[in-house]
Amino acid sequence: MGQTIAEKIFAAHLRDEPFPGTKVLDLDRVLCHEITTPVAIADLEWRGKDRVFDPDKIKAVIDHVTPSKDSKTALQAKILRDWARRHRIRDFFDVGRNGVCHAIFPEKGYIRPGFTVIMGDSHTCTHGAFGAFAAGVGTTDLEVGILKGVCAFREPKTIRINLTGELSEGVYAKDVILHVIGQLGVNGATDRVIEFHGPVIAGMSMESRMTLCNMAIEAGGTCGICEPDRVTVDYLWPFIKDEFESPEAALAEYRRWCADPDAEYAKVFDFDVSSLEPQVTYGYKPDCVKPVAEMAGQRVDQVYIGSCTNGRIEDLREAARILRGRKIADSVRGIVSPATPQIFRQALAEGIIDVFMEAGFCVTNPTCGACLGMSNGVLAEGEVCAATTNRNFNGRMGKGGMVHLMSPATAAASAVTGVITDARELLRQPAA
Amino acid sequence: MGQTIAEKIFAAHLRDEPFPGTKVLDLDRVLCHEITTPVAIADLEWRGKDRVFDPDKIKAVIDHVTPSKDSKTALQAKILRDWARRHRIRDFFDVGRNGVCHAIFPEKGYIRPGFTVIMGDSHTCTHGAFGAFAAGVGTTDLEVGILKGVCAFREPKTIRINLTGELSEGVYAKDVILHVIGQLGVNGATDRVIEFHGPVIAGMSMESRMTLCNMAIEAGGTCGICEPDRVTVDYLWPFIKDEFESPEAALAEYRRWCADPDAEYAKVFDFDVSSLEPQVTYGYKPDCVKPVAEMAGQRVDQVYIGSCTNGRIEDLREAARILRGRKIADSVRGIVSPATPQIFRQALAEGIIDVFMEAGFCVTNPTCGACLGMSNGVLAEGEVCAATTNRNFNGRMGKGGMVHLMSPATAAASAVTGVITDARELLRQPAA
Repeated sequence: MGQTIAEKIFAAHLRDEPFPGTKVLDLDRVLCHEITTPVAIADLEWRGKDRVFDPDKIKAVIDHVTPSKDSKTALQAKILRDWARRHRIRDFFDVGRNGVCHAIFPEKGYIRPGFTVIMGDSHTCTHGAFGAFAAGVGTTDLEVGILKGVCAFREPKTIRINLTGELSEGVYAKDVILHVIGQLGVNGATDRVIEFHGPVIAGMSMESRMTLCNMAIEAGGTCGICEPDRVTVDYLWPFIKDEFESPEAALAEYRRWCADPDAEYAKVFDFDVSSLEPQVTYGYKPDCVKPVAEMAGQRVDQVYIGSCTNGRIEDLREAARILRGRKIADSVRGIVSPATPQIFRQALAEGIIDVFMEAGFCVTNPTCGACLGMSNGVLAEGEVCAATTNRNFNGRMGKGGMVHLMSPATAAASAVTGVITDARELLRQPAA
Repeated sequence: MGQTIAEKIFAAHLRDEPFPGTKVLDLDRVLCHEITTPVAIADLEWRGKDRVFDPDKIKAVIDHVTPSKDSKTALQAKILRDWARRHRIRDFFDVGRNGVCHAIFPEKGYIRPGFTVIMGDSHTCTHGAFGAFAAGVGTTDLEVGILKGVCAFREPKTIRINLTGELSEGVYAKDVILHVIGQLGVNGATDRVIEFHGPVIAGMSMESRMTLCNMAIEAGGTCGICEPDRVTVDYLWPFIKDEFESPEAALAEYRRWCADPDAEYAKVFDFDVSSLEPQVTYGYKPDCVKPVAEMAGQRVDQVYIGSCTNGRIEDLREAARILRGRKIADSVRGIVSPATPQIFRQALAEGIIDVFMEAGFCVTNPTCGACLGMSNGVLAEGEVCAATTNRNFNGRMGKGGMVHLMSPATAAASAVTGVITDARELLRQPAA
């Protein structure tokens, strides 16, 4: 019988099966940030187990609140920093070198096809874009991962999503995943891996695939996975060029992580994206999704472009396309957080930072801050934010605030007008 | 009998003298930020006096915690924002357009020679650089200022400081003012205005004069004042060119705010700055000052370049001179906060932002945050920060943290080496 991608990765990493259906896997990567890891570190210390299984397989970053906003977050950062130094974790990214975890770790080439990856963060599923099995875990699993390099998972069942057709101008990966979540529902993929297939994926950049996989968790999915292909190899090539004779050789190797044609799926969905419109959420759950036309005209007080979902260079480029030659509405605070220093500097070199500032945006240093209401853009009661992030939960960006999820283009257009706006309308008009 | 600058301004603005020595002055500017003003607004509302004396003379900015870091600071921002809208205060600077109050208000041309200026902020004395009387006030005075456009002050006595000689390479206005504070002591100018005179001032840019006046309060001074001269006029020219026929005409008018030759001073100090070395503070008071040589080699964990003292373009240029072609030490977090969007964009255009990022600095949006331990760079217990800010009080940048005040050049050099360092040593060596 054929295997899904996750089944192949599970088989290759199986360390133990303590009882049927529960598999203990060897881990290739344990990723850490300063919010969830210090709790694990403290517990390991308390147990007299302040050790790490392999400092080279552990990567750490300060990203949620950076630079620190108060004594508590300064302490969290310090705990992670001291721990990284103590255990010679070389790939530790401190203030100034740091960015949003799910953007900076792929950018550094740490994620490869067939890898097993855990992190104490919901959106770890992002890394599935590389054909890896990547899952967010709780503190206990994180601790065991740090100490032993293993993690137990239930045997994965996979939902296959075939995306066919062609995305029209102004419709993006973010719209696709919002639509998929709307169709599946927030529990539609609970305890399932979501495999994305089809020509739409084949035509997507790694950045777009990360956007797609990033929100698998919002349908309950353990991980979102794309098959590794030439796009994957090209992205990784600077990091793997010493391991393979040619990109073709790398591709041949990586293709073994693709799903077998006769793999069995828990469910299969087919979506033709050709007629898909830009999507916007309306409620407090990510599956409350409508086409932008049905949301257009609703007031926004703040527009946030950033996060592990949509803070990458192609996101900033799409937003800048809208903002160039335009000013954002007086009634709107625009905030953009390029997800990593490399993305920031690339945007700088392309004049995109200047476009954002000229339009009236606040450009913050790379951070997760605003997305989860921890810093750099928390809403006051009654305020509404158009956001390129991943969660519109009640209070997510500040108690009493409302978040509408959308693509960077839709967010930028909404910043210009002060109300939720279809970006394609602005693209049809000449900028000032 | 001749008059000091403050005496002239007081005489020209006198509304009332309810008892001898207490003068009620008409105000030209009431400046507001989101930390102290919401309390005044709330009290005015509670008293049924939610009015403003003149919306054009009130200027407001969100600068201390921006973008908001939590629900409380989001509410503070919202109170100021709603109030500014309600009273049609047009010069209100919200997220994206906002910067450090004592940098953005002068930059916009709001401060003129002979003006009376109040704000609920200690470093309001900065604006004295323009030959204005500018003082930080408490909430009650701020409320009265907002409502009535007046403020009561005790009759000012003035300390005159004559600065002669020539600053040597690598020694800046910041070193001068640290030295002056060291000599006067933190109470040396309490209830006094400090007038700065001499060829050293004449040779200083407006930015440097603002640095100087900014820290008058650290010697207890109500205000630091420089005489208006051609440098002042040239800085203001874009804003006053419709008011005067020529810069010469403006100068002739503004010179009336200069001190009379026979003015009487409470004290006169003469400092020859020719042999002045870069200065660094060592304790928890701004008058604990030593030449850099005596502090060199002490560990720093964080370097902060920014604030109303030293976050202006000439400060960033001096720091970038050191950082160009160099990396900061692995053990150091470098944080730079350009003080306003205009300064940020100027630094962008000059390649300075890129120099900072290449060196490993975190570039934040314009904000006061780290300086007073409110956001964007709070220290953990036991951490040491080399800072271009104005206060080294115990806990100022985070409970249990130590702050060493210094110039941007000294701070940049210390970031490179990881210990307090004389920048002139690095300038003598070629960068990598």
